[in-house]
Amino acid sequence: MHENFLRIFLLLVQVVVAGNCYFRKLKEYFFMNNFEFWSPTDFVFGRGVEAQTGELIKRFGGSKVLLVYGGGHVVRSGLLASIQDVIRQSGIDYVLYGGVQPNPIDLSVYEGIRAGKELGADFVLAVGGGSVIDAAKAMAAGLCYDGDFWDFYDGKKTIEAALPVGVVLTIPAAGSEGSGNSVITQVTTHRKVSLRTAYWLRPRFAVMNPELTFSLPPFQTAAGATDMMAHIMERYFTNTPHTEVPDAVGEAVMRTIIDATPKVLANPEDYDARATLMWCGTLAHNGICGTGNEEDWSSHGMEHELSAFYGVTHGAGLAVVFPAWLTYMASHHPAKLPQWAKRVWGADSPEEGIARFKAWLRQIGMPTTIEELGIKNFDIERINKHVHVTRGEVFGNYLPLDEQRTMEIYKLML
Amino acid sequence: MHENFLRIFLLLVQVVVAGNCYFRKLKEYFFMNNFEFWSPTDFVFGRGVEAQTGELIKRFGGSKVLLVYGGGHVVRSGLLASIQDVIRQSGIDYVLYGGVQPNPIDLSVYEGIRAGKELGADFVLAVGGGSVIDAAKAMAAGLCYDGDFWDFYDGKKTIEAALPVGVVLTIPAAGSEGSGNSVITQVTTHRKVSLRTAYWLRPRFAVMNPELTFSLPPFQTAAGATDMMAHIMERYFTNTPHTEVPDAVGEAVMRTIIDATPKVLANPEDYDARATLMWCGTLAHNGICGTGNEEDWSSHGMEHELSAFYGVTHGAGLAVVFPAWLTYMASHHPAKLPQWAKRVWGADSPEEGIARFKAWLRQIGMPTTIEELGIKNFDIERINKHVHVTRGEVFGNYLPLDEQRTMEIYKLML
Repeated sequence: MHENFLRIFLLLVQVVVAGNCYFRKLKEYFFMNNFEFWSPTDFVFGRGVEAQTGELIKRFGGSKVLLVYGGGHVVRSGLLASIQDVIRQSGIDYVLYGGVQPNPIDLSVYEGIRAGKELGADFVLAVGGGSVIDAAKAMAAGLCYDGDFWDFYDGKKTIEAALPVGVVLTIPAAGSEGSGNSVITQVTTHRKVSLRTAYWLRPRFAVMNPELTFSLPPFQTAAGATDMMAHIMERYFTNTPHTEVPDAVGEAVMRTIIDATPKVLANPEDYDARATLMWCGTLAHNGICGTGNEEDWSSHGMEHELSAFYGVTHGAGLAVVFPAWLTYMASHHPAKLPQWAKRVWGADSPEEGIARFKAWLRQIGMPTTIEELGIKNFDIERINKHVHVTRGEVFGNYLPLDEQRTMEIYKLML
Repeated sequence: MHENFLRIFLLLVQVVVAGNCYFRKLKEYFFMNNFEFWSPTDFVFGRGVEAQTGELIKRFGGSKVLLVYGGGHVVRSGLLASIQDVIRQSGIDYVLYGGVQPNPIDLSVYEGIRAGKELGADFVLAVGGGSVIDAAKAMAAGLCYDGDFWDFYDGKKTIEAALPVGVVLTIPAAGSEGSGNSVITQVTTHRKVSLRTAYWLRPRFAVMNPELTFSLPPFQTAAGATDMMAHIMERYFTNTPHTEVPDAVGEAVMRTIIDATPKVLANPEDYDARATLMWCGTLAHNGICGTGNEEDWSSHGMEHELSAFYGVTHGAGLAVVFPAWLTYMASHHPAKLPQWAKRVWGADSPEEGIARFKAWLRQIGMPTTIEELGIKNFDIERINKHVHVTRGEVFGNYLPLDEQRTMEIYKLML
């Protein structure tokens, strides 16, 4: 009798424990995810704000600046000279490092670190777009580390310190001015690696004057807008339940980009449309559109191979990859596609939403096929093999992609 | 002949100079405003995150903490004890200051400052809602200042330093966890003053566990949701041109609040709806919904008088003030009302939008008249005089309000 009570008691304990575990599992599966949203960057936005660059560098503790820039445009436009003036007038010492290329490479980072070390830099200022900013961030990390900066990108080391970074933004697209990420390509291996940090690589300030983007050519402008759309969609297409807030905010920003981009292309000096697009680029990537979401990033992964092997513009590559990815998902994992089609494009089906997205891409002058992207002799087998070398055997969250699936998606780009 | 050339030349110079000035004026009037968006708070959101409080205090440099809280709820629920445990386990010294009331008063702030000074506090932690956070911010400023902290609220002094503030949020409403503002009432004068800072009063971190809001009573929950709506609308109703981004984001957050609030009231332990509402409260007031907008805040000003004189709950007061303000605007300055009605409420006219807003307020149990608010013997003359003593002869931006206009709006609340 006594023994039976004990048995029943133990059984009850088991049921309660198992039930509790099950409930916890359920909770994790069906409830909103925990998240951290930390976007400490001071965004200074509007006409003439680049005049505040010197005082901002000082506010954030800089006195010896490694000033990083890219190609000739910032030189020819006079921006670089005026930034140098402003910095000099604030009594700040600096050294220039120019020549960062689109899809920045590790070799530039090594050179920049060398220049910064010679000066004894305590601050890195990026004057340019995403590539310049990403390279500047890598230099900022490398300047606080005795080993090879690539260790961070390789996953061998975790960043525990970095010089503060400031930004004067000239190309709205990558959103790097408000993100803790940096993408660098290793020349010898063709590996394009995205490093993500919660804090260390987030710029302390970003000076954003939309007038500085007036001279951005139509193709770069449109590629930038496409990149912004992709940044939101990589977060939006998630299986995380209860993403009401990031969904609503992301849809709002997407609709605003869709509306502003043709205006900018029709009138490159439309201040308000340029300003709208510029600010959308930041919101698309500072994390506000994906709080709590398990993100995907497989389209970015598939595009990075195109950039690394064929040197195509990242945003233009995404204009080819994303519709293909969406088309594949429409038949294999529609889940969130009807909501996206309805709320972003006012379309009644995923297919119609994708069609409108492609029509918009064509309207803004983007390619939507590998051929239009200008890639000749596309080596689909090699690219498909290599994307799994870089990203792993299976990657992506919305629908994990193995070699067969990515192959089908690459085929949809032809 | 020579003289004529000179005359024509001078005339031309005048035309160019005048035209340029005119163009600049025009530019300022018709173009998007410059802005600074700086929301450096580290938002740590989700189940169980209050366990990170100690480590967050240390990350932001705290070792001796003035722990500020309000009434008995945080004591009874065991939250205060568990926060004390967490802090103690992190090896942090602290002193308690409890008893901050809703619509916090200057006397509490003085007492808190005294307690903090005795400890030699280097950090202020607020455990509670907007009132507790606002009081804690005032203490943080006062603890770095030799004079009377009210000098800052009086406009006699500008804050140039403050102790870092951290927050464990228990009431989603005021958005103070993500704002640089603090509202304190001076007991002797009935003056309720809102102090705004770009940086100093922004919390370094905010720990936000939606489960801590499960026990919030329906009335407080609904009043909080109303406050959030008001925070967005005070920014939304602006004459600033080209507010595409903040409009779209604000509308998205408003629609999400409208959707989530009845769910929370129907099931107070609906984690996802509570979480959605909590995060909306932060976005409503951290500035993201008003980047570049000239803001209004006259409804808040008119409500503050009701709170100061009749002790009504701020959010409930706003449920009475805002529909009256909107009704007045519908006939005197509709401007942005049709867009608001359409995009937020799916309504075809401002009147219909206002009717839906009022129906929603009633649905969530909010009053929409002075009588329903529980104010007996409403002294409309006195309140109307006093609001102009506090706010100035004319206040508000969307439509500046003089005594006659505010009187008409107060009458619409009867």
